[in-house]
Amino acid sequence: MTLHTTPRVVVIGGGFGGLSAIKALKKADADLTLIDRRNFHTFQPLLYQVATGALSPANITATLRTMVRHQRNARVLQAEVHDIRIDEGVVLSDRGDVPFDYLVLAAGARNFYFGNDHWQEHAYGLKTVEQALAIRRRVLRAFEKAEWTENPDERRQLMTFVVVGGGPTGVEMAGAIAELAQHTLVKEFRCVDTRQAQVILVEGLPRVLAPFSESLSAHAQKDLRKLGVDLRLGAMVQDIHAEGLTYKDDAGVHQIKTANIVWGAGVAPSPLAQSLCTQAGLEAIKGRVPVTSNCSLETHSHIFAIGDLAGFTDAKHGLLPGVAPVAMQQGRYVARVIQARLKNKPYGKAFRYRDKGSMATIGRNKAVAETSGLRFTGLIAWLAWLFVHIMYLVGFENRILVLMQWAWNYITKGRGARLITRVKRSTDV
Amino acid sequence: MTLHTTPRVVVIGGGFGGLSAIKALKKADADLTLIDRRNFHTFQPLLYQVATGALSPANITATLRTMVRHQRNARVLQAEVHDIRIDEGVVLSDRGDVPFDYLVLAAGARNFYFGNDHWQEHAYGLKTVEQALAIRRRVLRAFEKAEWTENPDERRQLMTFVVVGGGPTGVEMAGAIAELAQHTLVKEFRCVDTRQAQVILVEGLPRVLAPFSESLSAHAQKDLRKLGVDLRLGAMVQDIHAEGLTYKDDAGVHQIKTANIVWGAGVAPSPLAQSLCTQAGLEAIKGRVPVTSNCSLETHSHIFAIGDLAGFTDAKHGLLPGVAPVAMQQGRYVARVIQARLKNKPYGKAFRYRDKGSMATIGRNKAVAETSGLRFTGLIAWLAWLFVHIMYLVGFENRILVLMQWAWNYITKGRGARLITRVKRSTDV
Repeated sequence: MTLHTTPRVVVIGGGFGGLSAIKALKKADADLTLIDRRNFHTFQPLLYQVATGALSPANITATLRTMVRHQRNARVLQAEVHDIRIDEGVVLSDRGDVPFDYLVLAAGARNFYFGNDHWQEHAYGLKTVEQALAIRRRVLRAFEKAEWTENPDERRQLMTFVVVGGGPTGVEMAGAIAELAQHTLVKEFRCVDTRQAQVILVEGLPRVLAPFSESLSAHAQKDLRKLGVDLRLGAMVQDIHAEGLTYKDDAGVHQIKTANIVWGAGVAPSPLAQSLCTQAGLEAIKGRVPVTSNCSLETHSHIFAIGDLAGFTDAKHGLLPGVAPVAMQQGRYVARVIQARLKNKPYGKAFRYRDKGSMATIGRNKAVAETSGLRFTGLIAWLAWLFVHIMYLVGFENRILVLMQWAWNYITKGRGARLITRVKRSTDV
Repeated sequence: MTLHTTPRVVVIGGGFGGLSAIKALKKADADLTLIDRRNFHTFQPLLYQVATGALSPANITATLRTMVRHQRNARVLQAEVHDIRIDEGVVLSDRGDVPFDYLVLAAGARNFYFGNDHWQEHAYGLKTVEQALAIRRRVLRAFEKAEWTENPDERRQLMTFVVVGGGPTGVEMAGAIAELAQHTLVKEFRCVDTRQAQVILVEGLPRVLAPFSESLSAHAQKDLRKLGVDLRLGAMVQDIHAEGLTYKDDAGVHQIKTANIVWGAGVAPSPLAQSLCTQAGLEAIKGRVPVTSNCSLETHSHIFAIGDLAGFTDAKHGLLPGVAPVAMQQGRYVARVIQARLKNKPYGKAFRYRDKGSMATIGRNKAVAETSGLRFTGLIAWLAWLFVHIMYLVGFENRILVLMQWAWNYITKGRGARLITRVKRSTDV
């Protein structure tokens, strides 16, 4: 009798990539371990709706154990991964070492402040549920404070919201804050007119949604301005501090006084990517792990990297973007490769990314979408956005509840999940 | 022209009592201010469902501003009240002083550890959303840790859950944890059998649900035991510490090793009650403010105390219990008194509490209820419990969403809101 007769496949990360890999390995004759620091999967594209009180965290998350409940070959470990040891074939975590025969690294990306980590405490990102709740707390508290201050300067500063980054996250966030101020809160305040709130979107490039076609960018900009969002394009952030933000554009250096900054400008791969590169003697591509056409390391074919931290390049798309469809397709692909290997069969097909298009929503009935050269705006794009997000949301229950919540929010222009919960003193009597 | 031509009514606390008072003052010719430390109302009877992952915080809360949105005479102040100055007619808060002509104190009660405040960090209570989330985090994390520990003693300790207090809160909490372990989690864990979890209910009196009739207590005890809850009755808690809990009964002193203790044993009125008593020269009744038959202070007829912190005694019921119906009825009553006074009309009717009965749920299809001498158990009591809780839940949206969520949970035996969110490092990049 030998130990480990069944090969051990370890997947690090329960995001779009890791979860797709685990689920596609359902019938694999292997012991699967899914490691994540959380006990739940987060549907990151909707975090901005948690941050603006439209949805609850539970609506856009799914317990990992529930996801793989019926998959008897899979177990879930909630643990923080410190490092990977390629030579020893082991993952080091705060719950002990986890040995592997195959490894799928799908640990994703985190916010990146271009080397200015001290910006972080003033400009929360939108990568985790906790960050979304921190933004929700800060935004709602600003309105509460504004209602009761008698100092007009302080009031203006409290009611100024800055979103850094004009990608889909930034655009959606700016639109949602503007709608909150314009529609949801306006009847609930007595002293301040919440419609006076200033929402400013700061973007370094000359247009928002740069990966989209120019006409759609222009349309999104028009929609944002209609909602009252103040666009500062070609604006490079120079500093972020407790009092606000400084940026530079062609006209010079500008200051915005605000206590509410949301960071949607940059992400960087998990540090595990760098560790893997160093051990394997590979050179990282923008911090990502370079992989071959079958998503594995050139030097170690039993180690795969997928999703936001994988550096996969093809002739058609260049370096693949850090978006959910890439991660999901790669997850399913590596599952096929691993299953072939487990059966000692060759698997010659290279990974091919199928780009189904992009979309971003700006607000009520306002969105832009493009797919296979077709472009949509307005109501059609918005309905397509709703449909796609409901379909890809994990968990049947979530789909129903989010659909109901959205219908309710749409009719009432309300946002029901507007709790200012406290972080400190959570155990107060 | 004089200042304050319109009388100022200040209500402290947005719970059942305060909210009822504000809403019943809808047509009053007065400036109403509702002060609460939170920006939302919490439906406390369902907090145990948040603590066990069945519902989300947003499902059982409602933004105070939204509640009084259409009430143009009311404004909301999110502030922490430090004290009240009767003689100056002013409420002191961290957002400044708020003067009043009429005051309704409805600040409720908090957990009370019988003078052992250090128990608090080991035994969270169930009075706030944050406490419910802290319990959820601790309970779910215990199962996660148990799954991965190889030490059988540690595993046993992790899977031991103690609920202190056999009132409705304690009974509902014990039943919900037992159902979580017996039904919800059992298929999701690979190493531990979650059905082996021990749920222990510790109660100082010889039976649970002491305010109910003996036959219903006996029925509830039978239901709890069916769910595997271990009842320790006539058991006085002596100490609570990081390793567990010590209690004493007729047989001697006993130890329970556990890291999961929920406190449902005692509450005490807000410290504002004591301050009011001292200033008015009144003697507190069990920490509560003694009030006359019209819910005001004997010494100051423009100051009212209602709900959990009011000491209202009548011949039929004695000291009224700290339950939602008392608070709501008193809230509506003082609104009538204040409106009569505003019109300089006499209002001679004393407050009369109408006891509509009590109910507690133990689990799926299991509950006890009594009303006007009638007693119900099992499915009928359980359906009545569901109906009453849905009807009294604040917000139409919440009613629909909770009903859907309950239907889903009932069918699947699932609990969707099982996120272990982190308290610290909420702003991690």
